[in-house]
Amino acid sequence: MKNLKLGIFGFGCVGQGLHHVLQQSNSINSEIVKICIKDLNKPRSLDSSYFTDDKTELLQNDDINVIVELIDDADAAFDIVSTAMNRGKSVVSANKKMIAEHLEELLELQERNKVSFLYEASCCASIPIIRNLEEYYDNDLLTSLEGIFNGSTNFILTKLSSGKQSYSEVLQEAQDLGFAESDPTLDVEGIDPKYKLCILLFHAFGLIARPEDVFNYGISKINDFDIDYAKKHGYAIKLISKCRRAGEKIEAYCLPSFVANGSVLSQTSNEYNAVVLESAFSESQLLYGKGAGDKPTGSAVLSDISALNHNYKYEYKKREKNNGKLELCQNFHLRLYVRYNGTSPDFDDFVNIEEKYSSERGNFLVGNISLKKLKDSNWLKESSINAIVLN
Amino acid sequence: MKNLKLGIFGFGCVGQGLHHVLQQSNSINSEIVKICIKDLNKPRSLDSSYFTDDKTELLQNDDINVIVELIDDADAAFDIVSTAMNRGKSVVSANKKMIAEHLEELLELQERNKVSFLYEASCCASIPIIRNLEEYYDNDLLTSLEGIFNGSTNFILTKLSSGKQSYSEVLQEAQDLGFAESDPTLDVEGIDPKYKLCILLFHAFGLIARPEDVFNYGISKINDFDIDYAKKHGYAIKLISKCRRAGEKIEAYCLPSFVANGSVLSQTSNEYNAVVLESAFSESQLLYGKGAGDKPTGSAVLSDISALNHNYKYEYKKREKNNGKLELCQNFHLRLYVRYNGTSPDFDDFVNIEEKYSSERGNFLVGNISLKKLKDSNWLKESSINAIVLN
Repeated sequence: MKNLKLGIFGFGCVGQGLHHVLQQSNSINSEIVKICIKDLNKPRSLDSSYFTDDKTELLQNDDINVIVELIDDADAAFDIVSTAMNRGKSVVSANKKMIAEHLEELLELQERNKVSFLYEASCCASIPIIRNLEEYYDNDLLTSLEGIFNGSTNFILTKLSSGKQSYSEVLQEAQDLGFAESDPTLDVEGIDPKYKLCILLFHAFGLIARPEDVFNYGISKINDFDIDYAKKHGYAIKLISKCRRAGEKIEAYCLPSFVANGSVLSQTSNEYNAVVLESAFSESQLLYGKGAGDKPTGSAVLSDISALNHNYKYEYKKREKNNGKLELCQNFHLRLYVRYNGTSPDFDDFVNIEEKYSSERGNFLVGNISLKKLKDSNWLKESSINAIVLN
Repeated sequence: MKNLKLGIFGFGCVGQGLHHVLQQSNSINSEIVKICIKDLNKPRSLDSSYFTDDKTELLQNDDINVIVELIDDADAAFDIVSTAMNRGKSVVSANKKMIAEHLEELLELQERNKVSFLYEASCCASIPIIRNLEEYYDNDLLTSLEGIFNGSTNFILTKLSSGKQSYSEVLQEAQDLGFAESDPTLDVEGIDPKYKLCILLFHAFGLIARPEDVFNYGISKINDFDIDYAKKHGYAIKLISKCRRAGEKIEAYCLPSFVANGSVLSQTSNEYNAVVLESAFSESQLLYGKGAGDKPTGSAVLSDISALNHNYKYEYKKREKNNGKLELCQNFHLRLYVRYNGTSPDFDDFVNIEEKYSSERGNFLVGNISLKKLKDSNWLKESSINAIVLN
């Protein structure tokens, strides 16, 4: 059992809850030494001696052996995290953007400095998906991983499916409840879940994918026509992040998708997240829990701190095994529903078109298209065109 | 990476599937050396040189470093498993009865012989619940664990809830599909899920509970009256195994329970299992997957073999921390629905009775009772009385 001396960056709800629970636990052998915050004048629940606005008071303090990084700014976070590791400190972080964008460097920092860098809270908050990929799915039998990785958009889609509120009304409600950021772009355009997918791709298959190489498409263009289509056909619309192994190729994307009513993903509502795993010989398995909010995030941070008591490190076994062998592929086909009003999609982009429908309210087609064609198409950017995966 | 030489006891569907997948995997460094079976004359898919009916050919073979035990008989299994560990071999088993009844001895065998004994497949088949308790919930923050641990009874309850078939018809269907044993007592009386609960109690809280000290009550007395009650009140009936920490006391039972429609447990249908975990600071988390069948069981056995490649051992950290401190308690109260026709329950056993209803079709009461009173009552054994937890 290691005695952990924590330096915490950020003291919002997660940080405060963390302090509260650490006080109550007998088994997590740790104490908070110092907390770095932006605004020293804000009233705090702890004695002022805990606080500083000078990061060097944490990073250069040899008494502190663990840095817990809970700030928003990805660039500042990377600076903190890399400085901490270079000074031999272990680090716990929840910053998906920072991690997805720096996987290679963060791996190198861990190895060179022989420290732990844990970030369970960065993916699906309370769901222990990284730990399960590291510890339980640590062989080459895993074939696919998909799920709902973003609580804000799932909240919006759940409300939208009732048909009673418009997209902008629902977005406003999500913001009022604290489920969506004031700039919701990262969520609704599928960028936040893509960061998580990049992190999980690494732990699932040992593949480092640059976020810009993984295709994402958001939910902001979904309209009543799409929702009616889903209802008539027995579907729910979900923002699905998916990666799948096909031989030495990895297929990955983050796209709105129709999922059959009654399936576990269709039943994952509001701010809940779900991850479905498939491996050779097993049938699908599901991990489910809250994917947004202070408590679910805090509980994952706490489990990482607890693991540091036992010097736990990610082993990245897949990285060793698959290094260089697997690669991201864009030539696989998607079965897609494309709804359009006015401008048509370029029908020639499709391998085949199974259905075409037109009406005064709107038109749609169902067809097969390669991810690469879809990604490169200009028609997809039209505000009057929307695409949803149809499996 | 350890080179695993496997000796397998039993070559039914799980064993055969295991052989098939091991052939396909590059990352699980293992080979099957010998397979011990009962009937050498039965036609097999592998060369006859693999097979023997003499257990010493596996147990005394120094080439074999891992024994995979996949037989039904709990006593024979314990004999095999303990002999194997005493000869320095690691062991993988799926035998919940054997494990639940010998936890203390099995722990001692592992420690004395410095070998691994892994048994993920013994609890909820494909759901990696033991690994999650060992690796992720390895601190004192876990407060409760409950779920559906038995696929056969869940299949029966799912079918029964449609109201179209009688209990005996559904049981027959479950047996025809291979979900229920020809002697279904272990399943329908809640004994099988109780074994699993005993194993999980150990990994969740470090408590060794004798199976006879954990109260179980089955589903065989559920009738149309109970099912109508559930429907009218918006419930599903599920066989729930539960353990909860209250200070230094652990409450545990396996009882049929009403769960609200729409909850994740109510949506766990047929042969699926689900485990809901709650811990301080986190909200509930769910693990979900198939809890019965050859493939889900085989996939868990395979993950254990894969873990042995890396010399993985359960650390039983909770055992160390909680040793002697926590104890099983029977003085907690349950809110119970009791349905009776003819003979009444002893009303004096209840702390209070909230509701009483009588009609020609049947009578029921809703009241609070201590688990101890319930366990010791004679009225509960009446064939015309049924009890279901109502939270």
